[in-house]
Amino acid sequence: MKIALSQLNYTIGDFHKNTGKIVDSIVNAKSKGVDLVVFSELAIEGLPAFDLYYNSIFREGSREAIEVIRESCIGISCLVGGIYETEEHIYNAAYLIEDGSIKQVIKKKVLTANDWYDEGRYFNSGDGLQTIQFQDKKFIVAINEDLSQISNAKGVDFVIHLAATAFSYTSYATKFAQVSALCREAKLPVLAVNQVGAQGDILFDGRSLVLDESGNVIDELAAFEEETKFYQFNEGIHAEMPAELNPAVSETSIIHDALVMGIKDFFEKQGFRKAVLGLSGGLDSALVAALACQALGAENVLCILMPSVYSTAHSLKDALDLVDNTGCNHEIIPIKDAVTSFEQLLAPLFQDRVADLTEENIQARSRGVLLMAISNKFGHIVLNTSNKSEAAVGYGTLYGDLVGSLSVIGDVYKTQAFELAKYINREREIIPLHTIIKPPSAELRPDQKDSDSLPDYSMLDPILYQYIDLGKSPSDIIALGFEKSAVERIVHMVDKAEFKRFQVPPNLRVSNKAFGRARIMPVVFK
Amino acid sequence: MKIALSQLNYTIGDFHKNTGKIVDSIVNAKSKGVDLVVFSELAIEGLPAFDLYYNSIFREGSREAIEVIRESCIGISCLVGGIYETEEHIYNAAYLIEDGSIKQVIKKKVLTANDWYDEGRYFNSGDGLQTIQFQDKKFIVAINEDLSQISNAKGVDFVIHLAATAFSYTSYATKFAQVSALCREAKLPVLAVNQVGAQGDILFDGRSLVLDESGNVIDELAAFEEETKFYQFNEGIHAEMPAELNPAVSETSIIHDALVMGIKDFFEKQGFRKAVLGLSGGLDSALVAALACQALGAENVLCILMPSVYSTAHSLKDALDLVDNTGCNHEIIPIKDAVTSFEQLLAPLFQDRVADLTEENIQARSRGVLLMAISNKFGHIVLNTSNKSEAAVGYGTLYGDLVGSLSVIGDVYKTQAFELAKYINREREIIPLHTIIKPPSAELRPDQKDSDSLPDYSMLDPILYQYIDLGKSPSDIIALGFEKSAVERIVHMVDKAEFKRFQVPPNLRVSNKAFGRARIMPVVFK
Repeated sequence: MKIALSQLNYTIGDFHKNTGKIVDSIVNAKSKGVDLVVFSELAIEGLPAFDLYYNSIFREGSREAIEVIRESCIGISCLVGGIYETEEHIYNAAYLIEDGSIKQVIKKKVLTANDWYDEGRYFNSGDGLQTIQFQDKKFIVAINEDLSQISNAKGVDFVIHLAATAFSYTSYATKFAQVSALCREAKLPVLAVNQVGAQGDILFDGRSLVLDESGNVIDELAAFEEETKFYQFNEGIHAEMPAELNPAVSETSIIHDALVMGIKDFFEKQGFRKAVLGLSGGLDSALVAALACQALGAENVLCILMPSVYSTAHSLKDALDLVDNTGCNHEIIPIKDAVTSFEQLLAPLFQDRVADLTEENIQARSRGVLLMAISNKFGHIVLNTSNKSEAAVGYGTLYGDLVGSLSVIGDVYKTQAFELAKYINREREIIPLHTIIKPPSAELRPDQKDSDSLPDYSMLDPILYQYIDLGKSPSDIIALGFEKSAVERIVHMVDKAEFKRFQVPPNLRVSNKAFGRARIMPVVFK
Repeated sequence: MKIALSQLNYTIGDFHKNTGKIVDSIVNAKSKGVDLVVFSELAIEGLPAFDLYYNSIFREGSREAIEVIRESCIGISCLVGGIYETEEHIYNAAYLIEDGSIKQVIKKKVLTANDWYDEGRYFNSGDGLQTIQFQDKKFIVAINEDLSQISNAKGVDFVIHLAATAFSYTSYATKFAQVSALCREAKLPVLAVNQVGAQGDILFDGRSLVLDESGNVIDELAAFEEETKFYQFNEGIHAEMPAELNPAVSETSIIHDALVMGIKDFFEKQGFRKAVLGLSGGLDSALVAALACQALGAENVLCILMPSVYSTAHSLKDALDLVDNTGCNHEIIPIKDAVTSFEQLLAPLFQDRVADLTEENIQARSRGVLLMAISNKFGHIVLNTSNKSEAAVGYGTLYGDLVGSLSVIGDVYKTQAFELAKYINREREIIPLHTIIKPPSAELRPDQKDSDSLPDYSMLDPILYQYIDLGKSPSDIIALGFEKSAVERIVHMVDKAEFKRFQVPPNLRVSNKAFGRARIMPVVFK
């Protein structure tokens, strides 16, 4: 018996494209003598479709797609994830199609309920695990969380696991540990197919796994890329072309690859080609520019340098060095005239009030207007360049540096951004060294430094990580040895910045706790 | 036996304030010879606190508050909603406190799960309904949805219902029908206490109900205001001061009152006093200005008139008439210089490209920059003036007319906005008649009308209502008699505008389906 695992990149609601990919994979597998092709959880729709599951046009698209896939399965079988509807309920299901007939529909029992996705909002709980006799083998089909329900596995040869496990920089280790433990407990090999690709803010890394009954890796599919691989069953499972397993990959490198995929898919899946962003000479925008160049090609990235009277000469030089190093396009538009114009318009009202945050924000917002105008005129998509540390403490200007369709590093702390920059420079200098070593500054007033308003990032980020990512209480964080006054100040800043985070672009999610969907807050609270 | 129902306006997480209100009410009730005071669901915390329930400081505040309330109950009893924690779980609970002791903790069983609030994210399901012997009476305590679980009520005298039922313009009718049906089925009177006040975007109308065992109204508490009332139990329930029940109130008048309360609480609960908004001479901004004047006092409302070269003379006059009619403050800041400045800065890049949406957006965004600068300088809060029809079809400029901390009429369709304007003018002209009768226009290019880009609102709004509020499919909507091409065009516009709605201010919720929390969508989909 020969099985193919097909790890594909679906677009939510693009039934034509998703079905095309699935059918192509089935046709190709048939030509290779495959008996059964396995696709990931809710492959037909692309996961997670959120409230589109309520949409009857969407569900109709899904029903039509399953028909096309069924008809393509002549002389071959497949297991493919898709929604299943009865008159009253909708299920997260897997279809077993054999030679043009739907033989069985397996309905997921344990619905996903994490901080950003609640399947109970859409789906009913089904019967879960099913044991299937297929040719001379017997296997259990488990959809995602249902894997945990396997106990009695007598006479079963292996488990097929259809999942769509969202990426974070710790998700692979967690997934591996869970699947591997299941293998050992049930004494069964597992073939686990994962989704790959970015679904807007939510990323999927692929890395589908084939483990033996001791939980050891037989094979692993590509990270952040589509791949279909083939397995033979004789005495045990054999990969036809086993992967050379990666040596331990660094957290930084997988975040890097995830962000590049995130940008690429955001553009490709919406039919966009070109990006525009504001390039300040600082670390964050340089990092986003470098990632965008890698994802879209430097020729599709337009960096706008918008110096103000407070911009330092070295900032302009650092920005231009980045442009040279990457080969992207650039324009220089000094913002002075726009800022002056606003200040003059407001002078009668402001009279002799001293300059404060207002004037800093006018600079940031003038840049926002320029970026959006360029986006409107040329159809380029604005990439936001704020980081997670700033988002956490509210260090950013709504409608200013917080504009954009996608926040590339909004789930990356500043200290992680430094690591990413060094990683990008691993072979040659792409992000100018001076950009990396100079003290971070918003350059909105003379000699401004981030450290005027914020604790050092080396202090700030670990406290933010404890408070936001791990959900620890201030007293727990202080007990870890962090300075009490710093913890209290930072927690207060995070709480007071909640309103800003209501209106920021979606973040590419790389951690276990990204701002946005995962953090649901009241609009008004004390 | 004498019972007080205390319908109060809590601030989420403000334990000092909430406890103060609760204790004041207990002390006052004691002076009136009350035996038992009843407060609403999760009164101690203010509902809904969303992810603050995860926050250990928040939960600690709640624990301390319950102690203060317990100590205040000397010589009197109370039933008050608050969270209850065990080592492993958190419950939505009600505390029965008798003479300084917590006698019983009732834990809610049927957790709220609607489109904008999922209690299963936070709370465990408890045992639900409890029957309490209190003096010579026996009553059932039901927390919100648990009311539906009442079946066997032998020997019970009445039901006490603690709830926090969110307002929509149909919520009262629904609530009344449910409680009244329960009364008839169980043959029991019900005393139902509701929360009142705005919790950011989510509004609560109060209107606590006392019904007899036939489901008839004995009494009703105030709409949109705090009130505490007293009831005697002899043969049946008697209100000490029964309300004069309102004649049927119009949908428009309750939406009006809800919005006024929404603005008022948004400011009061955050310690803000003054609002600023852009006043165009059109309907939406005039309506928001009038609502803000009523909520905050005209002296606390600053309207900024920002005419462009495309603004008509009548617009400026209409705006000034509104200022005169309301007595609010105003400033006139023509935006021409800022717009020209941006156009000149962009001219080298744009070369001879024809003017398009870009230039319209530059106008809207220049106004956004000015409003935010005034907000920053004076600490006024920017009120957004977009309506639900525009939000639905994406007729608005991100970072332009979509700026603001609160969207006042973002859940009000344009046709409803017209009704609200007429209602506001019911006694004298506040919103200038010309503002109401002229064809709506964004005035971003010569002779522009909304009808150039959008179907007539009289056609648009009913289709939007079917698609968004009722979740009907296009084919269902067409089957109702709407024109096929219009339905398809409008549905397409709604689907394509999803990205804009990711970055707009929170809306005061007045319908059963407001954009925002209630609509969870993928960032990228086809």
